[in-house]
Amino acid sequence: MSGDEGLSPNYIAKTVAETMYRKDTAAQHLGIALKEIGPGRAVMTMRVADFMLNGHNICHGGYVFTLADTAFAYACNAYNQNTVAQGAQINFLKAVAPDSFLTATAIEQNRTGRTGLYDISVADDGGNLVALFRGNSHTIKGQMIPGLTEKEEK
Amino acid sequence: MSGDEGLSPNYIAKTVAETMYRKDTAAQHLGIALKEIGPGRAVMTMRVADFMLNGHNICHGGYVFTLADTAFAYACNAYNQNTVAQGAQINFLKAVAPDSFLTATAIEQNRTGRTGLYDISVADDGGNLVALFRGNSHTIKGQMIPGLTEKEEK
Amino acid sequence: MSGDEGLSPNYIAKTVAETMYRKDTAAQHLGIALKEIGPGRAVMTMRVADFMLNGHNICHGGYVFTLADTAFAYACNAYNQNTVAQGAQINFLKAVAPDSFLTATAIEQNRTGRTGLYDISVADDGGNLVALFRGNSHTIKGQMIPGLTEKEEK
Amino acid sequence: MSGDEGLSPNYIAKTVAETMYRKDTAAQHLGIALKEIGPGRAVMTMRVADFMLNGHNICHGGYVFTLADTAFAYACNAYNQNTVAQGAQINFLKAVAPDSFLTATAIEQNRTGRTGLYDISVADDGGNLVALFRGNSHTIKGQMIPGLTEKEEK
Repeated sequence: MSGDEGLSPNYIAKTVAETMYRKDTAAQHLGIALKEIGPGRAVMTMRVADFMLNGHNICHGGYVFTLADTAFAYACNAYNQNTVAQGAQINFLKAVAPDSFLTATAIEQNRTGRTGLYDISVADDGGNLVALFRGNSHTIKGQMIPGLTEKEEK
Repeated sequence: MSGDEGLSPNYIAKTVAETMYRKDTAAQHLGIALKEIGPGRAVMTMRVADFMLNGHNICHGGYVFTLADTAFAYACNAYNQNTVAQGAQINFLKAVAPDSFLTATAIEQNRTGRTGLYDISVADDGGNLVALFRGNSHTIKGQMIPGLTEKEEK
Repeated sequence: MSGDEGLSPNYIAKTVAETMYRKDTAAQHLGIALKEIGPGRAVMTMRVADFMLNGHNICHGGYVFTLADTAFAYACNAYNQNTVAQGAQINFLKAVAPDSFLTATAIEQNRTGRTGLYDISVADDGGNLVALFRGNSHTIKGQMIPGLTEKEEK
Repeated sequence: MSGDEGLSPNYIAKTVAETMYRKDTAAQHLGIALKEIGPGRAVMTMRVADFMLNGHNICHGGYVFTLADTAFAYACNAYNQNTVAQGAQINFLKAVAPDSFLTATAIEQNRTGRTGLYDISVADDGGNLVALFRGNSHTIKGQMIPGLTEKEEK
């Protein structure tokens, strides 16, 4: 995938995501799976487990947020520049039933300097939108894979 | 605790919270504990477990959100009118280290008709503010404990 | 534009918007113009006047918000059910220079019961995104034009 | 007010605010007045003028936002380090009647590195809370008054 011409943004995104996922106990524990990854974008899925249900017998909003926040994290870290969430807003549009299979799709709306803005939508297996999430990111020092950059050799 | 004069708001809040917690698999699974409860307010705690750590080896923001969102849910349901979160905004102010003990304090800023606004702050064991959360609630039909209202006998 | 088959959603949206605009001193005072209108969507424009500049000699964020909020209001009122903003979040992506010509485009992301969610983007004359706005609406009693509904005669 | 011991944070805040206000066409045009200023805090007022009314004959939410955003700007610029709003969230709690006199109070919740978080409440002359605003700030290069810092002589 590489060579004299240097590494592609897609290759970097994929490599960073795989490395990040191996260390990501939280995502693994929840059964969150990475389906697609690219520069500034990610698609991740999660099945709603019984331990995620709240006192109203629906999925706790915290787990819907966690899935969206995870897709956000992979999307904004895809450039191999360590990036953290500064904040996020979520709107809950539909109650999520037990055992639902959720898909979160993250896209980049803006990246200027060290700050970024990402939109994440979460849908259930019926294709219904259950939540919209908007996150602000901030790039900090460090790289997930030291030395891996667009112009370097593998 | 009651009598001819009817039930107090504090008694209702406590009774609803206890009933809600018994059904709240998500809160129990995370070791979230209810420390204080009253009309429109709640204090809840959570210790950061290893399964909550993300790829940067800090607590996944989703779990900080989940703790805050849980305190929010108990605060806004304390009137025994079923209430759900419409949306929320969170600002992450400080990375949360493994094994931190977090305390979320929820207060009511406004309640008009069926909508409410709540502020939740999350602090670590050193007393440092790690996140601020603001949630919008919406009252729906139904009661956690049918018939339990301020003016009725126990 | 109508007949036996009743009034179209587009006709209603247009008629409500025109009536609303005639009463909308704020929009008129700022030179905000309505370019497109439909059920749940609106496009509005505004030129940045000198009185809108702040102490950094750029357009005060409040006026960018006001333009976006206006497009939001026309989009969510387009069904001829009085609707108000419950809240909104705005992200400022680019400083707006004096004399810029701004375009706000509002689209509906969700409408369930009496609540709605709208996304508004604001771009300058160079096509650069200067702000993203997300608003929550709440339908209240009353109609801008009493009696004007989809199934009635003109 | 100064001397060998250097300039106080309050003196700096006051001096910056006065300088900033002289250039702030937007605030002047709206009759926004600065009532109190200090490091990370500001109180500002505005009377709702007829040109601020929308199609529902209440104050356009954009002007409530603008007042809050102005108080936010003065609070976060009070350290004489140029600071801009990255984003903000506003919740509208009560319709604002024509001719209301509004007071916005800004306080700092957090300041870490170049980012800050501020809470602004807006109340009417009856003391009713009409809106809550939370803003994220970002410090950029430059000073409103070059050279004015805590440790320097006047």
